[in-house]
Amino acid sequence: MNDSLETFTSDFLKSFSIQVFLHFKISRQDAEQAADVLSLSDLRGIDSHGVARLHTYFDMLTLGKINAKPNIKIIRDKKSVCTVDGDNGLGLVVGPKANEIAMDKADAHGSGWVSVCNTNHYGIASYYSLKALERDMIGWSMTNSTKLVAPLWGAERMLGTNPISIAFPGLKNLPIVIDLATSAAAYGKIEIAKRKQEPVPKGWIINHHGDMTTDPNDMINGGALLPLGSERELGGHKGYALSAMVDILTSVLSGANWGPFAPPFALRQEIPSRSVGKGIGHFFGAMQIDGFMEVDEFKKRIDEWIEVFRNTKPAKGHKAVLIPGDPEHAEEAIRRKNGVPLIETVVNDLKDISKQTGIPF
Amino acid sequence: MNDSLETFTSDFLKSFSIQVFLHFKISRQDAEQAADVLSLSDLRGIDSHGVARLHTYFDMLTLGKINAKPNIKIIRDKKSVCTVDGDNGLGLVVGPKANEIAMDKADAHGSGWVSVCNTNHYGIASYYSLKALERDMIGWSMTNSTKLVAPLWGAERMLGTNPISIAFPGLKNLPIVIDLATSAAAYGKIEIAKRKQEPVPKGWIINHHGDMTTDPNDMINGGALLPLGSERELGGHKGYALSAMVDILTSVLSGANWGPFAPPFALRQEIPSRSVGKGIGHFFGAMQIDGFMEVDEFKKRIDEWIEVFRNTKPAKGHKAVLIPGDPEHAEEAIRRKNGVPLIETVVNDLKDISKQTGIPF
Repeated sequence: MNDSLETFTSDFLKSFSIQVFLHFKISRQDAEQAADVLSLSDLRGIDSHGVARLHTYFDMLTLGKINAKPNIKIIRDKKSVCTVDGDNGLGLVVGPKANEIAMDKADAHGSGWVSVCNTNHYGIASYYSLKALERDMIGWSMTNSTKLVAPLWGAERMLGTNPISIAFPGLKNLPIVIDLATSAAAYGKIEIAKRKQEPVPKGWIINHHGDMTTDPNDMINGGALLPLGSERELGGHKGYALSAMVDILTSVLSGANWGPFAPPFALRQEIPSRSVGKGIGHFFGAMQIDGFMEVDEFKKRIDEWIEVFRNTKPAKGHKAVLIPGDPEHAEEAIRRKNGVPLIETVVNDLKDISKQTGIPF
Repeated sequence: MNDSLETFTSDFLKSFSIQVFLHFKISRQDAEQAADVLSLSDLRGIDSHGVARLHTYFDMLTLGKINAKPNIKIIRDKKSVCTVDGDNGLGLVVGPKANEIAMDKADAHGSGWVSVCNTNHYGIASYYSLKALERDMIGWSMTNSTKLVAPLWGAERMLGTNPISIAFPGLKNLPIVIDLATSAAAYGKIEIAKRKQEPVPKGWIINHHGDMTTDPNDMINGGALLPLGSERELGGHKGYALSAMVDILTSVLSGANWGPFAPPFALRQEIPSRSVGKGIGHFFGAMQIDGFMEVDEFKKRIDEWIEVFRNTKPAKGHKAVLIPGDPEHAEEAIRRKNGVPLIETVVNDLKDISKQTGIPF
């Protein structure tokens, strides 16, 4: 990146986010909750999902596109499973609430599974799976999102980058945290390549004819991202299938808008041609570890799994095999100590919010 | 394939398999169950998992490596979740039984989740997810298996091809059936390339140094398959993470052997250096659709999903986007009518079983 970096403490950024949410008469509890999701993202180095998005939430709230005081409720329920209607609230508020319902259900029924409609962008998927660890549960989290990805052999955007997260606790080791978009690459990387006027690797994107290309402009101007696996030969049908799974569990099952009909996250994005439900969708799961095995025995087995995989013979040119979550754990340790570096564009966005609201930055 | 093909009715092959299992004093019910799993695989065109594997089961049973009369039991239980010990039975018997427990739990608690240890190879993952559809449930199925796949940046086999299956029912349309190995390619494809002395695509395999290669011999002689995504740039860390997820849910959580310690499926395969549990592991899930949404409403939404995705603008050079499960549905329609074509090697294997047991073939 050519942008210069300015560093802020996580506490300062979180406090600023809380003030911004309070500005829209969001309850203090909800404002703190929403800011907590953004803050964890910034701490874990997932810069695209932290305060970098605050201006978009700000815009949507300003225009009343998101309900600042949602009445989040269970609309259908059967012991360990239910559907939640988020009443068009912030995903950063609806998500944590629905995830809590999944965990409470797991307390009562061994596991809990919640499909959510009428919600909005919920931040990083792993915020939710990590929460389950605090209750000795295995947590799952998925969401659909605005279309960006073509199904294999398609020439148009039909699916979001639809992430899957699941986390497993260790006893002495930090948890294994899986959090992956089901596309071959993140959209942010295409935007960066465009800005730098550099090609992207083959296998990331197609143009509007469905041909593979390395020119980021081809994707941005009516092309699409490819699913994980990229092409048929390397398993592109698998990435497409995983993305379909997420789309169905989060949105077909909950009554949300699925596939190409998922409403956009930001104002500048294209409005879908029609609506097939309410908002976007999430899916949360929680399973009590204790229902399968003694909790400490499981954690010790995870520790051993981590140690065995860390000691895999490395490929030539690589130091070691990583455990899912390693890069984020490392970044979190650094940023909790040294603060969160923000690029100039993001700092300017936050300054603009400050100017519009009078909240000091 | 250079092998000549001979075609048999599915009924004949199933009946032969039943006789073979009965030969080992397996109960009639279990023998029919096991043969049913193999038969569906042959019908759906997943040739590698049908009667092509019968000789391996035959060998393992002959040597007493698999328990013909297992006492399959729940060893830990908490409402919607439990752990099952398969008593070293055939995976083709343990799998269906554990899957039934998951579905019964879903009847009672809205969803059911079963982690299974002390089991063996269970056939195709989608056999189990398809069963759930008969009860208006969404079915999940995963298994670990003998090590073949390297974690990203590793130079040795540490994980199986660890498949994930999930199925969703349509009302008028055939179901969406997702069934994917978390490796970039199947091991069978490397064996075929070796036999034909042809290179494989870049991204499928590495040699024993961890370098990418296109020579199938490099993989077979101490190399490994790559995870879905192949390399870091194309998301190989995601395929590795998905494979890890399957390994943990099926085997760390159940008390089975995880990762490189999964026992081999066939006699000729390498015995792991140590044991960290019992047998291999499976994981089954079932969720009552009715707990989330009216069943017919969900099925109609799936129908619409299928129709919208089928009508995706196709990429240049392709006729249409497929729905996960399409190729297998098409093959099943053909094979139910015309029979199951078997290559000469498989026919010879079955003839050998016939010779050893006196069961007519």
